[in-house]
Amino acid sequence: MHYPQHLLKLIQVLKRLPGVGHKTAERFAFYLLDCSEGDLHEMAQILALVKDKITCCDQCGCFIGDRGCGFCTDARRNPALLCVIASPKEAFAIEETRTFQGLYHVIGGLLSPLDRKGPEHLSLDRLKRRIAAHGVEEVVIALDSTLEGDATSLYLKQELAKLPVRISRLAFGLPMGSTLDYVDGSTLARAFAGRTLC
Amino acid sequence: MHYPQHLLKLIQVLKRLPGVGHKTAERFAFYLLDCSEGDLHEMAQILALVKDKITCCDQCGCFIGDRGCGFCTDARRNPALLCVIASPKEAFAIEETRTFQGLYHVIGGLLSPLDRKGPEHLSLDRLKRRIAAHGVEEVVIALDSTLEGDATSLYLKQELAKLPVRISRLAFGLPMGSTLDYVDGSTLARAFAGRTLC
Repeated sequence: MHYPQHLLKLIQVLKRLPGVGHKTAERFAFYLLDCSEGDLHEMAQILALVKDKITCCDQCGCFIGDRGCGFCTDARRNPALLCVIASPKEAFAIEETRTFQGLYHVIGGLLSPLDRKGPEHLSLDRLKRRIAAHGVEEVVIALDSTLEGDATSLYLKQELAKLPVRISRLAFGLPMGSTLDYVDGSTLARAFAGRTLC
Repeated sequence: MHYPQHLLKLIQVLKRLPGVGHKTAERFAFYLLDCSEGDLHEMAQILALVKDKITCCDQCGCFIGDRGCGFCTDARRNPALLCVIASPKEAFAIEETRTFQGLYHVIGGLLSPLDRKGPEHLSLDRLKRRIAAHGVEEVVIALDSTLEGDATSLYLKQELAKLPVRISRLAFGLPMGSTLDYVDGSTLARAFAGRTLC
């Protein structure tokens, strides 16, 4: 006895979601089987319209709301300060901290040789043109503190070195609320190297 | 800064999946944003067609394949032996064991007063009619060993008591490969109560 063909297809599609294995996909599929026809059609519609409804700003690459890009059109933000992020979602995390008042620039990913993602996957020319055209004074690199994030940051630093801008990167160190004995060695080493006078 | 309206809708819909909270729904949503338009339309289509493509057998309630119900149309199966299950998916788990050669009957759920699911949610009349019409000799109750499963089994036993059929229920006891000190008390108690001569 096998699952009906369409159920197998549904499970296959659900398995594409990040972190979802066969068992979880089955669980999702059986949940969907119990949904009403109306709910299923609503979900299908939302999925089908994702690309039409969720678009990105031509300039900064962040999501566009109903009234254009919420960052680029905001006159209160400082255009001389540019924060480089990998994808639009990072802007939301940074905005929640309420500490950054500049603009964003999405480069669209990180360098990852294992996934065959080289420099051609980053929209670096667009970044350089923007820096030159809009009088940017400081570029804050806000990428993951992973191997890929480190490599991409280093590459960005080299590529932007000839431009007349300051280049900074987010600080590394102890996360807030952590105890020293639970922090991993490399974080502690970075916290030591980056210690500040007090 | 808020997420675009459609992204919020997408996250809301993904949160309906069992065991998916806000963070996971966000993760799924951002994964879907990175999918191609073609992939999204394929997923939407699969979702929209779930109710059309996946249908259940009128008689037993199990899923119907391309050539009708794989159980009811199989002449090699014993129609005198009827296994009562809560939903079609349980049939697949039981089939994998290759120990049951009878037919199935899906009652469509379990009694759960907290979720306002009373006896009217179980398709019991259909079960009784089937037992009477097809000369069923034994009904095997194969429901979860949870509070709801126990309550439903007890209710089924009472309801079917007047019919001329044997009623049995799956055995409870130690799961295979378990060590005694890791088995919970109630399982161990059931294993003792149900001990067999050897």
